[in-house]
Amino acid sequence: MSKNITKRSEDYSKWYNELVVKADLAENSGVRGCMVIKPYGYAIWEKMQAQLDKMFKETGHKNAYFPLFVPKSMFEAEEKNAEGFAKECAIVTHYRLKNDPDNKGKLIVDPNAKLEEELIVRPTSEAIIWSTYKKWVNSYRDLPLLINQWANVVRWEMRTRLFLRTAEFLWQEGHTAHATKEEALAEAKQMHQVYTDFVQDFMAIPVIKGAKTETERFAGADETFTIEALMQDGKALQAGTSHFLGQNFAKAFDVKFANQEGKLEHVWGTSWGVSTRLMGALVMTHSDDNGLVLPPNLAPIQVVVVPIHKTDEQLAEISEQVNDLVKKLLKLNISVKFDDRTNLKPGFKFNEYELKGVPVRLAIGPKDLENGTYEVARRDTLTKEIVSKEGIEMFIVDLLETIQKEMFDRSLAFRDEHITEVDTFEEFKEVLETKGGFILAHWDGTAETEDKIKDLTKATIRCIPLDRKEEAGSCVFTGKPSEGRVLFAKAY
Amino acid sequence: MSKNITKRSEDYSKWYNELVVKADLAENSGVRGCMVIKPYGYAIWEKMQAQLDKMFKETGHKNAYFPLFVPKSMFEAEEKNAEGFAKECAIVTHYRLKNDPDNKGKLIVDPNAKLEEELIVRPTSEAIIWSTYKKWVNSYRDLPLLINQWANVVRWEMRTRLFLRTAEFLWQEGHTAHATKEEALAEAKQMHQVYTDFVQDFMAIPVIKGAKTETERFAGADETFTIEALMQDGKALQAGTSHFLGQNFAKAFDVKFANQEGKLEHVWGTSWGVSTRLMGALVMTHSDDNGLVLPPNLAPIQVVVVPIHKTDEQLAEISEQVNDLVKKLLKLNISVKFDDRTNLKPGFKFNEYELKGVPVRLAIGPKDLENGTYEVARRDTLTKEIVSKEGIEMFIVDLLETIQKEMFDRSLAFRDEHITEVDTFEEFKEVLETKGGFILAHWDGTAETEDKIKDLTKATIRCIPLDRKEEAGSCVFTGKPSEGRVLFAKAY
Repeated sequence: MSKNITKRSEDYSKWYNELVVKADLAENSGVRGCMVIKPYGYAIWEKMQAQLDKMFKETGHKNAYFPLFVPKSMFEAEEKNAEGFAKECAIVTHYRLKNDPDNKGKLIVDPNAKLEEELIVRPTSEAIIWSTYKKWVNSYRDLPLLINQWANVVRWEMRTRLFLRTAEFLWQEGHTAHATKEEALAEAKQMHQVYTDFVQDFMAIPVIKGAKTETERFAGADETFTIEALMQDGKALQAGTSHFLGQNFAKAFDVKFANQEGKLEHVWGTSWGVSTRLMGALVMTHSDDNGLVLPPNLAPIQVVVVPIHKTDEQLAEISEQVNDLVKKLLKLNISVKFDDRTNLKPGFKFNEYELKGVPVRLAIGPKDLENGTYEVARRDTLTKEIVSKEGIEMFIVDLLETIQKEMFDRSLAFRDEHITEVDTFEEFKEVLETKGGFILAHWDGTAETEDKIKDLTKATIRCIPLDRKEEAGSCVFTGKPSEGRVLFAKAY
Repeated sequence: MSKNITKRSEDYSKWYNELVVKADLAENSGVRGCMVIKPYGYAIWEKMQAQLDKMFKETGHKNAYFPLFVPKSMFEAEEKNAEGFAKECAIVTHYRLKNDPDNKGKLIVDPNAKLEEELIVRPTSEAIIWSTYKKWVNSYRDLPLLINQWANVVRWEMRTRLFLRTAEFLWQEGHTAHATKEEALAEAKQMHQVYTDFVQDFMAIPVIKGAKTETERFAGADETFTIEALMQDGKALQAGTSHFLGQNFAKAFDVKFANQEGKLEHVWGTSWGVSTRLMGALVMTHSDDNGLVLPPNLAPIQVVVVPIHKTDEQLAEISEQVNDLVKKLLKLNISVKFDDRTNLKPGFKFNEYELKGVPVRLAIGPKDLENGTYEVARRDTLTKEIVSKEGIEMFIVDLLETIQKEMFDRSLAFRDEHITEVDTFEEFKEVLETKGGFILAHWDGTAETEDKIKDLTKATIRCIPLDRKEEAGSCVFTGKPSEGRVLFAKAY
């Protein structure tokens, strides 16, 4: 199988688009801006879902499901939120088609089936969920509400890219309600940490934790916490956000509770989400010119075994031994595939699994049978070694752990090499143009300066890092005083 | 906690509506015809999903995800399918809202953001999926395609009821493509059997397997296989369908493959689905005037333990023992909850778990501590017994199995008592009015007679049972010859 993927150094964006399709992750559909997530891509998403779902449940959340549609009057109740999403909404106006009288076999929208009120296809579910919470919350005993939803949402983006920006995408959205500000803030921070742990430990992607500036905040939030990752081309990608909503939605939807003294108060809210966008981050953090590189914790197939044989007899002997190994690996919860298709050459298979990013490949031929060995190849480093078949199960267990760890370490090293502190705007622009990556610079704290820098350089403030050191300085653009550096980058 | 649910004998429909809400399964939302699936209801759905997903994967299927929207021209490609769903489609016509110039803070549809082509919110995904399969299928080597999707769909029903008929619902839809008619038919039958096994073994609902008449067939299918269940009020409920699509969609979307001789042929298709409607069947098969009755295989909480105590000391002693039991049960994969809330009386808790359908309730008080016993209550039979704490884990394992089996047996007995063979139309109408249930009667095989019977009695042909015996007879309505009886009922 020939890969024929553009090299990253030639055209990173083209490499990404080609790889996503050729590795069978996703493809464009016949519907503008909407993608088809193919079985191999979806299998990775399922692994991500399973792990996140486990982490949500361990932190006390339950899943539920709320409607796809939001009536316009409900949608506009929280003004900032409505304004933030109004420009990219799919709107349902009719509920019936009828036969086209002028064109047999064709259908037209039935003008007699116009909805009294338009329905917005949810771009996010705060409105529909808070209108429900109004019914669910009466007393402090009903709080906290800790609910998550796995769903599809629609944002009518004009320029779309597979996984990174699609008109429809899949995500989870947590929506919680609390009796106190402190508790809601703690929840938003907790989920920020859950996302950090997931992205770092499972996706092997290092992130910088921070808060968004007011400009970049979620529409309707008082505070947005974000995790920011760095892609190989030096652009940042927002990997997950957790919002402290204050009492904004509680006020918009009149959600009050009687506290222990019987006094009515508005509840405090959070919401938090990650989406299929993470699939794009996974590809752009680890993969190379040969194809995908998947971290073992998310690989649908962790180990593949390819037999190398000339005779049916050899294959039979190999199969017997490999089937035994497969059983042992499955018992250790390792997902393994024995590819004994006889119509394809080993070289073709090697290429295919390289393209698909399978972390570990074993090959076994007549010589290995004789010597009691396997050839073990790592996808991430493209290195090979000969390993004795005795105890190879535990060798593989260790190797998968090593790969997971080293993939993170390499991404972290790359990321850290691409954080640059600058003190002048000249430097700022130069680093952005030549090296890219994250730039730590002083900022005067105004939206005006933020906007100007964005207009001039396309770089945005990704976040105010949570662990930044207090450091008096002057804004890189205006020279006005600043209390610490913020993180700039061009971003996806 | 007072239940205040209407009795089934008073008003079955009201009982159902109230129970679904009071047992925290679902409720109506602020969006016409759309429901909110509440956490407890969703937890049951998650258990159903997990089991079905396992069964789909064991039969070789993979999950994928296709777009929510279908462009009108794509939707109308398969004419029968399009016609079948045209009357109940939500249609997206615009992609942007703007500020209402006459009404500050309000939004209106932006007339400048009209879509060139309307988008249908999928009522089912054959069109979008077959338009994709066209790209995926070239040669016999690409077949079979065995794909499933978990998704939401929208059918704009005018009269809706929680779970049974909602404008939006959740479901899975399998879509497969095959090289031969035989293989596609075998697939449709296999999935028919998977649904039968799931509904009988996990939901404890007996079903009759059959084929739909042409009138009742899925729009675009050559054959629809169905499983039909009987509810307590004598009405039938279609619990799952599996369709043999012939080459209809392959022809509509021009999906061809080169066979082994290199000749181009249209592929053969199937589709199959079950939905959140099954939640309604679960409620209406097993539950009673006291609330839900859940089969152990789908109960989010299988066992609840309620302490009965007067002093803190007693509670401490009880807790120590119960915590030990909980650990043992969890090890046996039994989901168990120890309800040690001190602000609620045991009687209140008993009521709550009865309403929620928890299969087994243990109570333990000072006397039980003394005697080394638990009081064990079954939800399905409302019976209690005193059981020694020694070896109670295995007693519970057995009891859960017994409950699962006996719930099925009781439903089967009820169902079998409600199958009546009739030979005259007078009898037909009388049984339908008095006893209800399934009626086995001869039918002349014409859609005309089927329609007339439906108009006169509201009964439809639920299916032509697969295991019916060959039996010459005369149509119950026209007296014309018939080769065997078909299954009639009023249905949900």
